[in-house]
Amino acid sequence: MEQSKRRILIVGGVAGGASAAARARRLCERCEIIVYDRGPYVSFANCGLPYYVGDVIVEETKLLVATPELFKNRFNIDVHTETEVTGIDRSRQEIEVRNLKTGETRTERYDSLVLSTGAKAIRPPLPGIDSPGIFVLRTIPDSRKIRDAVQNATRAVVVGGGFVGLEMAENLRHRGLEVTLIEMADQVMPPLDPEMAVMVADRLEENGVRLRLGAGVQGFEENTDGSLKVKASSGEELDTDLVILAIGVTPETSLFESAGLTLGERGGVQVDEYMQTNDPNIWAVGDVVEIQDVVTKTRQLIPLAGPANRQGRVAAGAIIREAQGKEKRIQFRGVQATAVCGIFDLTAASTGASEKMLNRQGIDDYQAVYLHPGNHVGYYPGATSIHIKLLFSRSDGKILGAQAIGESGVTRRIDVIAMAIQMGGTVFDLEESELCYAPQFGAAKDPVNLAGMIAANHLRGDLPLADWKELGTNNVDLIDVRSPAEFERGHIPGAKNIPLETLRGRLSELSDNKDTWLVCGVGQRAYYATRALMQNDIAVKNLSGGMQTYQTFQKAGLLP
Amino acid sequence: MEQSKRRILIVGGVAGGASAAARARRLCERCEIIVYDRGPYVSFANCGLPYYVGDVIVEETKLLVATPELFKNRFNIDVHTETEVTGIDRSRQEIEVRNLKTGETRTERYDSLVLSTGAKAIRPPLPGIDSPGIFVLRTIPDSRKIRDAVQNATRAVVVGGGFVGLEMAENLRHRGLEVTLIEMADQVMPPLDPEMAVMVADRLEENGVRLRLGAGVQGFEENTDGSLKVKASSGEELDTDLVILAIGVTPETSLFESAGLTLGERGGVQVDEYMQTNDPNIWAVGDVVEIQDVVTKTRQLIPLAGPANRQGRVAAGAIIREAQGKEKRIQFRGVQATAVCGIFDLTAASTGASEKMLNRQGIDDYQAVYLHPGNHVGYYPGATSIHIKLLFSRSDGKILGAQAIGESGVTRRIDVIAMAIQMGGTVFDLEESELCYAPQFGAAKDPVNLAGMIAANHLRGDLPLADWKELGTNNVDLIDVRSPAEFERGHIPGAKNIPLETLRGRLSELSDNKDTWLVCGVGQRAYYATRALMQNDIAVKNLSGGMQTYQTFQKAGLLP
Repeated sequence: MEQSKRRILIVGGVAGGASAAARARRLCERCEIIVYDRGPYVSFANCGLPYYVGDVIVEETKLLVATPELFKNRFNIDVHTETEVTGIDRSRQEIEVRNLKTGETRTERYDSLVLSTGAKAIRPPLPGIDSPGIFVLRTIPDSRKIRDAVQNATRAVVVGGGFVGLEMAENLRHRGLEVTLIEMADQVMPPLDPEMAVMVADRLEENGVRLRLGAGVQGFEENTDGSLKVKASSGEELDTDLVILAIGVTPETSLFESAGLTLGERGGVQVDEYMQTNDPNIWAVGDVVEIQDVVTKTRQLIPLAGPANRQGRVAAGAIIREAQGKEKRIQFRGVQATAVCGIFDLTAASTGASEKMLNRQGIDDYQAVYLHPGNHVGYYPGATSIHIKLLFSRSDGKILGAQAIGESGVTRRIDVIAMAIQMGGTVFDLEESELCYAPQFGAAKDPVNLAGMIAANHLRGDLPLADWKELGTNNVDLIDVRSPAEFERGHIPGAKNIPLETLRGRLSELSDNKDTWLVCGVGQRAYYATRALMQNDIAVKNLSGGMQTYQTFQKAGLLP
Repeated sequence: MEQSKRRILIVGGVAGGASAAARARRLCERCEIIVYDRGPYVSFANCGLPYYVGDVIVEETKLLVATPELFKNRFNIDVHTETEVTGIDRSRQEIEVRNLKTGETRTERYDSLVLSTGAKAIRPPLPGIDSPGIFVLRTIPDSRKIRDAVQNATRAVVVGGGFVGLEMAENLRHRGLEVTLIEMADQVMPPLDPEMAVMVADRLEENGVRLRLGAGVQGFEENTDGSLKVKASSGEELDTDLVILAIGVTPETSLFESAGLTLGERGGVQVDEYMQTNDPNIWAVGDVVEIQDVVTKTRQLIPLAGPANRQGRVAAGAIIREAQGKEKRIQFRGVQATAVCGIFDLTAASTGASEKMLNRQGIDDYQAVYLHPGNHVGYYPGATSIHIKLLFSRSDGKILGAQAIGESGVTRRIDVIAMAIQMGGTVFDLEESELCYAPQFGAAKDPVNLAGMIAANHLRGDLPLADWKELGTNNVDLIDVRSPAEFERGHIPGAKNIPLETLRGRLSELSDNKDTWLVCGVGQRAYYATRALMQNDIAVKNLSGGMQTYQTFQKAGLLP
């Protein structure tokens, strides 16, 4: 068909839908482009909502990235808010549209239909779930309701320890509330592995957030004074003035299901690399779709803003370029789950697969290394540690994932590794990468280099690594090569202290019958010791990340 | 030969030499490893010296990354400081060593010799160059002398606007001195292109550094009161209490020359990818060597700490692995000149080639784009702009270089692009990259994505770009699509204001006879306008980066 007459209807005007609309206009000046959204706003900053609740973002209007007027004036795009699309007639290429203000219903013809229906917050069917004072946070009106409730509240319970739960806990603390966070898993922040997540948990507790991990919610009760009681599976009952439900989202697929469009096994919409559904005239983008995880090559639901925006671009390009020039179409490359969360001045970020995810997918050809370098050289004032876990393939060194936690410089290192993963890079590439260095900005051996060097040393056979989780379960000679003073301040039970500086003269003290495992503060001195001992024909393994990592494994309850 | 008996001598104990020594020990426990350094210290933080002068780093001992005692105790490496290596007898595999404290000379046999002699500060043979009060900054004793001189000084002249010159200017201002910086080129910070460097110059002047660009120094004179007179080529005479010479470094090749080792055409030592010289028993690393620039594929002198450290590792690996296992040797991959400088809370960073460098190498198949995104979303408080210039190949989109300047988030974006360059990435990879996003950390479309999108839009033919340097030299219809209020506050002479919002109804006002060029604030609205007009069959070009970039071109004197 002639592009200029094409009628493109878009359902859902946030992130993916808004991107698709604007991109479609840029590619096709004369197409008719219409956006429908059930809510009162399009293109609003949903990632900013917790900070609006927390009064970090003060003006609500700041959350409006674009208005219907701007869409009209700047892009010649019609936007209909408070307008719900209630059905699709695929054979007639029509949608049923209902004006939520007037209740009127009409049909609209499409040549191409983009569905960006998003995901809705999960509200489990628990006793008392509909009590007043129980909120979810997905929209500006949601955030307004919570802001109102906060006015008269002194206590809050946040249910769920994912990104939104953590951000809400922080922001409610900013507003002066007592906050308890309850989470069914044994850890907060699911993209992190448990021994990394404990650092986030510590930061929450240091800032007065009471944590209840490994506890589900069994129901809610209204107290006589109007407050709420949250009943935990542990038996504990938490009195509170308001509850935030942040236990995840589920894709809004009803429109797809009623139209007979194919869903995937995770319950999201199935699309190809152009975001096209099984109906060649219908595209789907954003939180509603299942997407290939580029590391595990599995289909996943990964509701993130960045991928949603790129998917909108891809869908618009596929629609318009089909006629204009196929070679200009962009393929969606999949998602690698790069994500970040700020928690009371701590940054926790990750990209690629976690160890949990690898295990879940049955991928066992991997190795993890831990390190704790400074964000910049120690001799320049103000250096802070970045705690890094790097996961890579044992067979070829391909980077599988990375997690990092620290006060400063965290997103930078995760982003560099994200780019390396995108490009199919290995730990040998990280080892050799050339990054910005001046004393206040990094180190001649950047944390990214160090992570690559440790991993590459392991793969070259120069640094055999012990498995932290076997610590204490097997009969090894555990040597702590730190100074006596450091050793005295705390060490692993059963460890023997032979400082690195004296090690070469004390080889006879090492056991002939047992494996020797080495540990130090962060892993560096144990590496030096590993090299010295291996070349004396002593079989040794290194406990990656040293005592700093030991403490996180211990706190996470991962040691016997 | 048997590795365990190998005798490895290393000349120069900073960065490359120290890395080579420590790495050699890790790979060979029984090798004999000896380090010689002319100076009183090894492994000191030379990048920290300006900040020690500035009292940002207060304790001198902080600058000592490792001491001879640590080398001995931890690595079993002998370090001889204040010991100069004065000659090499290649046929006998011996070096001549002179103890600078006693004056005694001896010879030492080597199996492998690593030369990390570094570079020395250039002191041009100008009249008065040996006057008291004229300093260079390469060593801890140098910094001590400057610290002493600062005590009694109120005025300083810094000669040279490279990294060290800028850092010294900042640190001398911190110490309360009046500072004038004189630089022969028309810009500061040579790795940047001039229209980017003006932002650094502005920041210097805002902080009281007086700039004299395009002016060389013709000589120095001692005034009768003990102060100095700096005579500039402009005719200006600058009275000052001290002078810092920071006009660059030249490789310390005398040892190589006297031994008949091959130098390259830039005056540095020629080495292969294992850092081996033309003598199979002699390696060279660090500032003294010529290295392949991975972008331009030319040999360059690029004195940077990160590459020096990696070169040390490579050389040690090549020496030891030759016998132990060749497949474990690491090749040095070349340098991409990633660098960063902090200037009064501004960060300026770059990676890959500048436009100047491409021109110098005769590479003309490139395109530049400019953008000015926020370091994070605008709706989260505290966003600041990052000014980015991205250079890429016109034929295949390969990334050639990037420069970025801003208050925050600069190193992160340059490092991501550095990794992309290392991996042979294109602007299409930047467009699709998946980076950390939360409101306080970035945007769903990160600055890196935006740079890639603009470049990719251009390569797909969707965004024809005008050449800023042709502005005013040709007869075009220049349309400014900002609002009338913005236009009134300042615009390019001859520009006509047609706001984007009214453009679609005013097509008849565009000239049929001339090319139409579009400009806006930062490039975004002009892009929208470009798309609308192109699809109305109007030939248009976009002025990349908008008025913000216009101002930098104007300040840099690059417009007619």
